[in-house]
Amino acid sequence: MLAKYALALFALLSTTFFAVAQQKTRASNPATPNWGIAIHGGAGTILKKNMTPEKEKAYQDKMQEALLAGHAVLEKGGTSLEAVEACIRILEDSPLFNAGRGAVFTNEGKNELDAAVMDGSTLKAGSVAGLTTVRNPISAALAVMNQSEHVMMIGAGAEKFAASKGLEIVDPSYFRDETRYQQLQRIKQQEKTQLDHDGSQGMNYPELPEDNTDKKFGTVGAVALDKHGNLAAGTSTGGMTNKRYGRVGDVPIIGAGTYANNATCAVSATGWGEYFIRYVVAYDISALMEYKGMSLKAASEKVVLEKLEKAQKGTGGIISIDRKGNISMPFNSEGMYRGFIKADGKPQTFIYKE
Amino acid sequence: MLAKYALALFALLSTTFFAVAQQKTRASNPATPNWGIAIHGGAGTILKKNMTPEKEKAYQDKMQEALLAGHAVLEKGGTSLEAVEACIRILEDSPLFNAGRGAVFTNEGKNELDAAVMDGSTLKAGSVAGLTTVRNPISAALAVMNQSEHVMMIGAGAEKFAASKGLEIVDPSYFRDETRYQQLQRIKQQEKTQLDHDGSQGMNYPELPEDNTDKKFGTVGAVALDKHGNLAAGTSTGGMTNKRYGRVGDVPIIGAGTYANNATCAVSATGWGEYFIRYVVAYDISALMEYKGMSLKAASEKVVLEKLEKAQKGTGGIISIDRKGNISMPFNSEGMYRGFIKADGKPQTFIYKE
Repeated sequence: MLAKYALALFALLSTTFFAVAQQKTRASNPATPNWGIAIHGGAGTILKKNMTPEKEKAYQDKMQEALLAGHAVLEKGGTSLEAVEACIRILEDSPLFNAGRGAVFTNEGKNELDAAVMDGSTLKAGSVAGLTTVRNPISAALAVMNQSEHVMMIGAGAEKFAASKGLEIVDPSYFRDETRYQQLQRIKQQEKTQLDHDGSQGMNYPELPEDNTDKKFGTVGAVALDKHGNLAAGTSTGGMTNKRYGRVGDVPIIGAGTYANNATCAVSATGWGEYFIRYVVAYDISALMEYKGMSLKAASEKVVLEKLEKAQKGTGGIISIDRKGNISMPFNSEGMYRGFIKADGKPQTFIYKE
Repeated sequence: MLAKYALALFALLSTTFFAVAQQKTRASNPATPNWGIAIHGGAGTILKKNMTPEKEKAYQDKMQEALLAGHAVLEKGGTSLEAVEACIRILEDSPLFNAGRGAVFTNEGKNELDAAVMDGSTLKAGSVAGLTTVRNPISAALAVMNQSEHVMMIGAGAEKFAASKGLEIVDPSYFRDETRYQQLQRIKQQEKTQLDHDGSQGMNYPELPEDNTDKKFGTVGAVALDKHGNLAAGTSTGGMTNKRYGRVGDVPIIGAGTYANNATCAVSATGWGEYFIRYVVAYDISALMEYKGMSLKAASEKVVLEKLEKAQKGTGGIISIDRKGNISMPFNSEGMYRGFIKADGKPQTFIYKE
């Protein structure tokens, strides 16, 4: 009888000790010292000659704010998913980027938002498309992943779900940005003129105007590796200006715009969505690493600088991070808002080709 | 000067001769003698003990009808895309399968349909989700691919587009099948009972009833290789009974439920969509062939019988065809409605494990 109690006591003590020891290890001697985060704020025709120093600074400040927020999460042992969400919410809340507040307008003058997340440790994923009232689509995608058995929800159904999970619902006018609205008017005017001349069916993209704000494929995204060695990716977008017919791009398509797998990498893309879907861009980078033994850099560059480049209109870029903390940010457009931060806490941001 | 004319004449004549020779080759001595088609009509708990001979025959007859229609297209030199559309339209128009007419009901008592197609020769793709009024969703997906610059359209916007392209629009009641409706009522009743007991959030799938009609992941799909050596894939579905919140499964996700690439294979999937999205099933089979040099059979079986099998709930199957005309149809469920036809014109259909 006494032996039984002693054994139970021993079991209890050793379990406690093991748990404490584990916690201490996690806090003081992380298994993954090379943790970090990379973000992007869209790629496209972003040229220095069209920029002002004030505008440049505004983009860089906002990206740094996002990176520092993600860093704070990871620093204190938070998960890569939490860091991705923290970064993206800041970018969504800024009118500078085409996601959340600041989303571009559809042909019907609405803002329709898409987002996705993926957890590299479980391969769980969540995505939403066609939202018009959820303030932070990235959080809606996370709710789909964590609080439902589904991966993808669209339209009114997705909004109903987000509301039922307590996410902040806003009036559609919250997303309305005057600059973006004027952008739609200009493109519509230009398209009308163009159509009068070439007699096309109204489904072609017009040449975008000579204005770097309009010529980029705005989207925001983040990829992270946390202290526990787990990878995550997230992406959020307002789609393409003047889009029609409930068009959905690559962002909410798991494997195209967003993918994460602890065995390989986490990827978030920005670019001409149709091409990114057809080339299954995000998963292809992972597959090249897993099946061909390529490095993160080689795989990322092969897909963006070779395969997409060959597909002529496959303009855009990606950010990626692997389980060793390597980061790659290739793009085949003139510029891409991008940056990263590592354990040292010093955010680095870039806009043009280096 | 004369020499110049002679040269031009020679060039013209030889071009014409070459074109005629090519056409003749295509018609009388096809480059791809092993052309063929495979189809599926959904996978799941399909057990012989729950079947009647009449029901079995109905499924087999309808699959044969679809295969013969696809064969007729290919026989006379039609494209793999045309054959895929022909097969799937027949399956969509039959109430036996969960696609088009016969689609299951959402929680709100609606039929919401998704479909996708992909052209292996161009990597162009088209997909639609959340349709309620388009008679043949597969044709809407084809229209998106061929008549727009987009890949994916959802909801009311997609319907507006389909209507503008002259596709047949029907009243939502067209999709209403009494058996399917009763199926929804049973599941709702069962869910209610179950929820009363386990206190869950109402987002879990209830255990599906002991009835093979209800326990299958109905979806229809086709893959084809034509005489010109081009591959194509298409898939169409009514989704999951009692689905909520605008849930979208793997079918309209290029790379998950549908993928085609002349360099490797064409794939159409059926199963628990969420797992097929997370595992990027259709593109993964292609990637294993391209990057690991696996055969169609080895790649298809690795994904369905190993990777998805490990993911416990990754129930379902796929059909695939490669550019040599090899066909693979692995599934990890009890049964899968499936069949194929080759140049000899003899349709072969199967329901259970062989």
